[in-house]
Order: sequence, then C-alpha cells, then structure tokens
Amino acid sequence: MIIVGEKINTSRTRIAAAVENQDSHFIGQIAIQQAQAGAHFIDVNAGTFLERESECLRWLVETVQNAVDLPLCLDSPSPQALTEAMKVHRGEPMINSISLETERLEALLPVVAGQPCHIVALCMAQTSMPSTVAERVEVGSQLIKHLTERGVPLERIYVDPLIQPVSVDTQMGGAALGAIQRIMAEFPGVNTICGLSNISFGLPVRRLINRNFLVLCMAHGLSAAILDPTDKQLMAALLSADMLLGNDEYCEKYIEAYQQGLITDR
Amino acid sequence: MIIVGEKINTSRTRIAAAVENQDSHFIGQIAIQQAQAGAHFIDVNAGTFLERESECLRWLVETVQNAVDLPLCLDSPSPQALTEAMKVHRGEPMINSISLETERLEALLPVVAGQPCHIVALCMAQTSMPSTVAERVEVGSQLIKHLTERGVPLERIYVDPLIQPVSVDTQMGGAALGAIQRIMAEFPGVNTICGLSNISFGLPVRRLINRNFLVLCMAHGLSAAILDPTDKQLMAALLSADMLLGNDEYCEKYIEAYQQGLITDR
Repeated sequence: MIIVGEKINTSRTRIAAAVENQDSHFIGQIAIQQAQAGAHFIDVNAGTFLERESECLRWLVETVQNAVDLPLCLDSPSPQALTEAMKVHRGEPMINSISLETERLEALLPVVAGQPCHIVALCMAQTSMPSTVAERVEVGSQLIKHLTERGVPLERIYVDPLIQPVSVDTQMGGAALGAIQRIMAEFPGVNTICGLSNISFGLPVRRLINRNFLVLCMAHGLSAAILDPTDKQLMAALLSADMLLGNDEYCEKYIEAYQQGLITDR
Repeated sequence: MIIVGEKINTSRTRIAAAVENQDSHFIGQIAIQQAQAGAHFIDVNAGTFLERESECLRWLVETVQNAVDLPLCLDSPSPQALTEAMKVHRGEPMINSISLETERLEALLPVVAGQPCHIVALCMAQTSMPSTVAERVEVGSQLIKHLTERGVPLERIYVDPLIQPVSVDTQMGGAALGAIQRIMAEFPGVNTICGLSNISFGLPVRRLINRNFLVLCMAHGLSAAILDPTDKQLMAALLSADMLLGNDEYCEKYIEAYQQGLITDR
C-alpha cells in the first residue's frame, strides 16, 4: 500500500494558522510525524487561502521538503496552483488531481505529460458526480486513455473512484468498491487511490467506518490511500489487512510494527 | 450476516466446569448474552469430554434451549454425537459439520438429508487439509453435490473453507478468501461460513487480526460466521462492513446499534 499523509491541509484550523504565520517548525513537525509513521508521500493543500492559494502552496512545498526527504502530493483543483507548486518541488511529485472537466484536463495534460510525476485521476466528468460503478469505470478509462496517449505510464496513474457518503445512498460503498475492482482488473499496473473520510459523512463513530472501509477497499485491490498515518488504529487495520491479503512475507512488517508498539487493539 | 455464537465450547475452562457441574444457570446466561448480542444460532461443543461427549452435548442442547428461543449449532466431528443431539433439539439445528471424510460423510448424509436442518460442509477431504483455492473449491463442490443430490437445498448448506494460519503460510488468507468468492459465485444461494480465530494463530494481537479478517471475508461474500457476538469491537466492525457493502438500508441497523451503545471505536 502506498500511503499519502493527509494532515497538512489548511481546512484544519491549526494548519491554516501555521501557514498564515509561516510557522515552518510546526508544519515541519507534522510532516516528520507522518514520514516516521510510514507515509510515502506528504499531501499539501492550501485550498482555503483562495486567491493566495498558489503562494501558500509553494511555501508549503518548500517548507515540507526542508523537513522531510519525501515527495509531496500537490493537492489542488487549480491547474495554476499545481503548475506553480511543481516548479518548486524537488523530485517526482504526485499531482492531485486531474479530472475529465475540460478546463482542468486541458490545462494540466501538457504539464503532467511533460515531466516525471504521479497523477491522481479523479473519476469526475464534465457535468456531474458519478453514481454507478459503470460511470466511474467509464470516466476512469477515459482519463487513463488521455494520460497514456501522452506517454504517462500506467504505474504512475492513480485512479480515484470518488467516494460518496453511504448516509446519502447505501449503494455508494459498493459503487466505489466495484469501481476499484474493475479498474484494477481492466488496467493491470494502474493504481487506485482514495480518501476515506467522505464515506462516513453524516454518521456517528466515523473513524470506525473509515477504517473498515479501508479494509474493504484493500480487499477490492486498492493500492494507495490518502489517510492519517499517525492514526494507530487505522494503520493497525491496514497492516493486518495487508498481511491477511498475502502482501507481507513471513508477516515481517506486522511483527516489526508490533515490536515498535504500533499494533494496537484499542 | 448470519451469526453463530461460539462461546459455549468446553475447550473453554469455565464452560467445561459448568458442564461438569451441570450448572444450567451459568450455561443459560452465556446463551442469553449471545442471543441478546445478535446471535442467530448458539453453537454447543462438548468435544473435550471424549467418551462422554454425546451425553454432555445432549445436556447442553436441552439446557441452552431452555434458556433461549434459538436454534443451535451442533458442533462435533462425531456423527454419533451429532445424531443423538439432533434427537433432543427443538426446531431446525445447524449441523457442524460434515466433510468428505468417508466415515463422516456416510454416517451423516442419511441423517441430515432426512430432516430439515442447516449443514456446515467443511472443505476437508479424505486424505489431507486443503491448501489452494482450487482444492477448497473442489472439495466444497463435491460436498454440495452430495448434499443437493439428497435433496438438501443450497440455502441450507454452509461451506466452510477451513481457515489456516497466515503465520504458517502467508498465502492462507488469500486461499480462504478466494475460495469464499468462487464458491459464492459458482453456487448462487449457497452460504459460506468460517470461524475466525485460526487465521491469527501464532501472531500477536489476535483479536485485531481476526476482526480485519472478518471484514475481508465479508468483502469476498461470506454470509455467516462463527464468532463471539459479545465482542463489541468485532460486532462494530461487522455492522460497519455490512453497511458499507450495501446491506443495511438507510444505515438503520448501524445507527440503531450506535444508539444502544454497541458501536465503539475502542
């Protein structure tokens, strides 16, 4: 499982304040904690700063990369903010995200095709949110086609099925799970990724739901997730599921995490 | 999900003592707790009593059915103990289990085919434990054929893929999961069932592993499980997974369990 640490997002009050005050120590600490907890990418999102988003995102890229030796996941719906953040990023970032919305697609395709990077392809079409498995697979397939035609290898594409709350429609869990399974089967080598927390919107004890949704997604082939790697219960679920799915030879990673005190039943 | 409460098993010291002392109050309480926690069947196993097994199992059947108004899961490898327990059971029991071992199969087939009951069909062949998905599906298919030829409907057959520890072979999780998926796909209407705890044998924090294995099994189509329904964390995982898989209209069961204090994140 490829883990993208989600904590550096200005929708969180303390992160927004740290960005506002250019508190590079605080931001650096959050990055280090996520790296030590097992993140492979650190997500940076400054969306709440609106017209200052590009500037703040660039500051976050430099600040986080000064603290940890990891690639970042540049997280914005704005092609301009992503393009500018890529210019200051060292190494190969993950671009989060491209979609089938014309403006976004046309602005980002030449940029992401031009240099080595990982790309989150969000199953969002021009006009509407996807509802069924078939709609997700259709939009995902079109995005894969656009990207591979520009020379992006399948291994660098991360299709995000777009998680919608089960409280709104109880079929939304199955729709995302079915899409993950079909996309992984139809495009061997491609990745699938998702954030977890939307699934539990409107319901009590959300962390429990998110955690079990992650395990269900892994059972359907999910290969990457945007999550809080410092959440011990979540990571314990992830490590045990990965072991149970046969991805942890000699149960080595599970046992090592246990010895480090990272496997908890509470 | 069909839930079989596993707690009344004489391999547990306090249960063995209660059976020895004919403490029907204690046994009744354990049965009532499991019924209140959501069990659909109460498992009774007196295997440790060896030559007194039949007698003790009959006593358990009568004692538990005096306490709760539920069918029981009669749990023994001995055709004789099962046959005698069936005689005193009221309603339609679950017989746990039949297998492809000749002696067991020939003794039990006429008994189970003769009266309404549910049957656990263990994927165990004459000579050896199954290892691969294919071996499990092969043994399961043969058992289904034997039972349906005798007039047992698919809906009353519960194929148990036989769980083996991932600590012995990390492919054992996938082998059971793959078998569940294929058996459910190839025999629409049939049930699959398993106990959880073998999977984690030899590893630390076993309840965590068992719980996540249950969620993975559910993702692959498992329709019944032998478990401890009074384990709140396990039942919270089960209820959230069932909701996320689209089996809980309007999230009603999840929310109701939450309101009853049964949904816990710790």
